[in-house]
Amino acid sequence: MPDADSPARTNDPLTDPISARQAIRSGVHEGHTAGLARGRVQANVVILPVDYAAAFAAFCHANPKPCPLLAQSAPGDPRLPTVADDLDIRTDVPRYRVWRDGVLVDEVTSIEALWRDDLVGFAIGCSFSFEQALIEHEVPLRYVARGDNVAMYRTNIETRPAGPFGGPMVVSMRPFAPADAIRAVQVTSRFPTVHGAPVHIGHPHLIGIGDVEQPDFGDPPRMEADDIPVFWACGVTPQVAIERAKPPLAITHSPGHMLILDGLNVHLAVI
Amino acid sequence: MPDADSPARTNDPLTDPISARQAIRSGVHEGHTAGLARGRVQANVVILPVDYAAAFAAFCHANPKPCPLLAQSAPGDPRLPTVADDLDIRTDVPRYRVWRDGVLVDEVTSIEALWRDDLVGFAIGCSFSFEQALIEHEVPLRYVARGDNVAMYRTNIETRPAGPFGGPMVVSMRPFAPADAIRAVQVTSRFPTVHGAPVHIGHPHLIGIGDVEQPDFGDPPRMEADDIPVFWACGVTPQVAIERAKPPLAITHSPGHMLILDGLNVHLAVI
Repeated sequence: MPDADSPARTNDPLTDPISARQAIRSGVHEGHTAGLARGRVQANVVILPVDYAAAFAAFCHANPKPCPLLAQSAPGDPRLPTVADDLDIRTDVPRYRVWRDGVLVDEVTSIEALWRDDLVGFAIGCSFSFEQALIEHEVPLRYVARGDNVAMYRTNIETRPAGPFGGPMVVSMRPFAPADAIRAVQVTSRFPTVHGAPVHIGHPHLIGIGDVEQPDFGDPPRMEADDIPVFWACGVTPQVAIERAKPPLAITHSPGHMLILDGLNVHLAVI
Repeated sequence: MPDADSPARTNDPLTDPISARQAIRSGVHEGHTAGLARGRVQANVVILPVDYAAAFAAFCHANPKPCPLLAQSAPGDPRLPTVADDLDIRTDVPRYRVWRDGVLVDEVTSIEALWRDDLVGFAIGCSFSFEQALIEHEVPLRYVARGDNVAMYRTNIETRPAGPFGGPMVVSMRPFAPADAIRAVQVTSRFPTVHGAPVHIGHPHLIGIGDVEQPDFGDPPRMEADDIPVFWACGVTPQVAIERAKPPLAITHSPGHMLILDGLNVHLAVI
């Protein structure tokens, strides 16, 4: 159920999470989810066979900065009732990635044909939540203004392994003027369940990044003179862990095509 | 009166603020105040004729990061009852600086002979308070470990003037490994009444500092490879403003020789 102090629901997918999920489920909306159900939490998705679910949950708990776990389904149950009314994880993500033995093999708009009674769904916090707070605090996100994807990098920071899951932490990087870098630390520290405070600031080579203008995922950040590069743990980390664990089947969201939950981002702030 | 949840008072100047002030007042203690009345707030001191007091108070309110005002006395009254029992601003600072027409002319251990009915005392927050929090959070302060003074610099950041008071903001700088720089932003943001969050990070030349190893006050910071320099607004700023305002008489504490108040530093934290 929605929070008592949430905005009233409408039928507009741009503001109402149930309407947004219905538009995605029915195929009316097939694109990325930026701008949908404004102010609501959007999540990274991982779906795994139950044989891998306990190890993956342990991996998330061992690595809360890249993998902050917001919800986990019962085996075979496509709902996540603690974080959203009426949600169906088989249909409510606009674009899914299908992985077989750790290899990306397909992208689909529904996984109803792939669903099995042994699958477990995970919703993991996403930086969209803290980016809303940065924008509201007038900390500029230049890549958003350009319509780019955020720059992401494999690092030399090892995650804590759990069962077959492990490998490098992936980070996202946002460049800022120095005063904005300070403000960005302050603002994102308030959001520990959606990656929280940065994991690094200032010197990319210290975390194994050679050239910041050649990210492993996303678009070049186009650093400006005197920018401070600020790095956050990133929800792409689980996809790299899946490549390493090689489960016979894994399903994730496609980057930018997130699962919309009911809660408000502002409610994630610790103060 | 002490807070109800303060530690019990003792007769030990190392832990008890009344005993520490008495040791200073009686001349038993004449050195700097680092380590005295541990855990208690220590303050920068400015004393001015009443003709200058309103403009100086306005200067503090206009520049709360370098000049966070903790208390102000009534004209001619040497007490600051809102921040300490039994405090006498004429005797309770171990070493005072005396300024005439904006020029430092003397250092003395008591200002009883200089006291006048028109003098107003100001207690201004000091970075000792947030440094205690940094140390408790295991953020290393290397200059403290070396027994040095913190490095301080005149910047190209102009204060907001008020009456005759104005001029450049003075900053202190502490170098950190990147992860500690992030933690230092988080920890000091909790202490807005004692300089609070940094004013700059990363690029000294952007705030008018040529060579960080040649500070205007204090000792060279001895930066290490891959350090991030982090800059805070500094309580020396009022002394530079006094040089500019040229009041016929001004009295300040001598650096490191602070006024000990009753409150606990931990009570200054906003959360």
